[in-house]
Amino acid sequence: MALTPAETIPAGLAETMRNIRLVAFDFDGVFTDNAVWVAEDGQEWVRCWRGDGLGLRKLERAGINTVIISTETNPVVSARSRKLQIRCIQGCADKRAALESLMLELELSPAQVAFVGNDINDLPCLTWVGLPIVVQDAHPSVLPYARYRTQTPGGYGAVREICDLFEQVLETS
Amino acid sequence: MALTPAETIPAGLAETMRNIRLVAFDFDGVFTDNAVWVAEDGQEWVRCWRGDGLGLRKLERAGINTVIISTETNPVVSARSRKLQIRCIQGCADKRAALESLMLELELSPAQVAFVGNDINDLPCLTWVGLPIVVQDAHPSVLPYARYRTQTPGGYGAVREICDLFEQVLETS
Amino acid sequence: MALTPAETIPAGLAETMRNIRLVAFDFDGVFTDNAVWVAEDGQEWVRCWRGDGLGLRKLERAGINTVIISTETNPVVSARSRKLQIRCIQGCADKRAALESLMLELELSPAQVAFVGNDINDLPCLTWVGLPIVVQDAHPSVLPYARYRTQTPGGYGAVREICDLFEQVLETS
Amino acid sequence: MALTPAETIPAGLAETMRNIRLVAFDFDGVFTDNAVWVAEDGQEWVRCWRGDGLGLRKLERAGINTVIISTETNPVVSARSRKLQIRCIQGCADKRAALESLMLELELSPAQVAFVGNDINDLPCLTWVGLPIVVQDAHPSVLPYARYRTQTPGGYGAVREICDLFEQVLETS
Repeated sequence: MALTPAETIPAGLAETMRNIRLVAFDFDGVFTDNAVWVAEDGQEWVRCWRGDGLGLRKLERAGINTVIISTETNPVVSARSRKLQIRCIQGCADKRAALESLMLELELSPAQVAFVGNDINDLPCLTWVGLPIVVQDAHPSVLPYARYRTQTPGGYGAVREICDLFEQVLETS
Repeated sequence: MALTPAETIPAGLAETMRNIRLVAFDFDGVFTDNAVWVAEDGQEWVRCWRGDGLGLRKLERAGINTVIISTETNPVVSARSRKLQIRCIQGCADKRAALESLMLELELSPAQVAFVGNDINDLPCLTWVGLPIVVQDAHPSVLPYARYRTQTPGGYGAVREICDLFEQVLETS
Repeated sequence: MALTPAETIPAGLAETMRNIRLVAFDFDGVFTDNAVWVAEDGQEWVRCWRGDGLGLRKLERAGINTVIISTETNPVVSARSRKLQIRCIQGCADKRAALESLMLELELSPAQVAFVGNDINDLPCLTWVGLPIVVQDAHPSVLPYARYRTQTPGGYGAVREICDLFEQVLETS
Repeated sequence: MALTPAETIPAGLAETMRNIRLVAFDFDGVFTDNAVWVAEDGQEWVRCWRGDGLGLRKLERAGINTVIISTETNPVVSARSRKLQIRCIQGCADKRAALESLMLELELSPAQVAFVGNDINDLPCLTWVGLPIVVQDAHPSVLPYARYRTQTPGGYGAVREICDLFEQVLETS
């Protein structure tokens, strides 16, 4: 479900958001446009969005934890996480196990967790957390599992949009 | 011909697809958006789609062979093939000869082969295989030769769309 | 406010523009499309617009000063400024303080200064100068503060459009 | 003027095209999308179109000369010219003088020359040759000087479209 003006956030969604203490993000297709630039020697580049950093600082100030969970171990994910100063869990064949383990550490229940994904390998996380979010250009098969679908595509401000939404909900609570 | 909901795959196309044992792909314009980034020293980069890998794994699990056939010998093609773990034939002035040779090795007839292309140098292959496929943004002169035209442009999920289509047909067979 | 044909520049805007002696630009999202390409070792690339250089030469010939003011100290900003031969102030947590200091040096009042931005960290500058400008794809929260909104997105000719507008106003004055 | 189906090429344009013996191209915005990727050390990357090569081979086979004329001396232009095996004149403050000099060498009159450009620094060439062509996304101020405006933007097949158009005209002559 996509929302246009901030005022129209349904009460139910706002209430769910107020309980969230951790927002976990998939990387490719969420922080990026799901593309990868490949060089002749196999090195990779990804395209990220400058505006996401300002958003993540808002979540931080609101006391909400953030993490990137990525199946593949990829230096570009580490590089971007470092720049954004966001925790990063990589190389986990099972994203949901990684998420559960982090939740244990933070003593959080599913109702306190949001997950942002874009493809079928995000389904185990999306179907488990209290607030499943997908990006505007997510794979069609994951759309039905989302409580919120961003208006912005991945890598074009989707992360920022989610952070702005939290800011708005928390300011009016 | 582009299809929207999966349910509407015409019976004829589905039957053709069930016979396919090899999907051969052109590289530029199919795995990429047909662009190339050129550096000052002439090195090249191409832009690929992260979601294609999940699709190729589906074909693999269904026992369908896959291969990339590229005219030019280019390190970026080797690099991407390696990452996707897909066989790659390069430096073949004659793509169709290369394809025929592979079909001999795999003991396949044209009716068991699909070819995915985007430009006029793909015509010898497209006009020969049982299932000629072109990407949404293929050169206008090859469109008439396609049995299926993807809804997604090359490098934006065209490969994934084809793999998803096979999955759907095979699941319902 | 976006204008289509040059002839329709409102008299009030044109008058404001004739007083301008300094155009200060944010970098990311103004000279670029607000994206950043990240390599495996964390190095960054940005995407700029070739046509901006011709525009900046026009401002120069008209005797208008130009400067890029960027919060982050980033080698890509230095590199692009050098190529465009435009002054560059970086690493200023407080953009407005940097701008005020430059205005003191040039002995300019706010009415003689335009600022071009795209996001909330540009608000202190946008709300202070005589001519606040935002790019077409600026963050929604800064749009209300702009006197002029470009028709072109950042990194796709927004800087050039602003320079062309000044040329047109000054030629008809 | 943009044409849709090949059959509709006006007789006047076709006649002009049949006289052409040299097609001279600007580089940025014609072979590229007018963007430049800038690295931290100031190195540059440009985004070109894979399909242009097939087009240039067509002109070659038709006995039409081709050349890239670029104001700036830039290694990326040399690199791309080398790959496309097309002559390249760089570092000419005055593009028209460079073009005139080449025409003298090839013993050609303006009526035998086409020039493809995208911005105001192409005007001296566009207003002089027999067939001035601009890309779909050229700067608004050069549009009135074009005899033909491509349907495809620069870097997305504009060069290929022009080559295809020549092929079509020459085949039917």
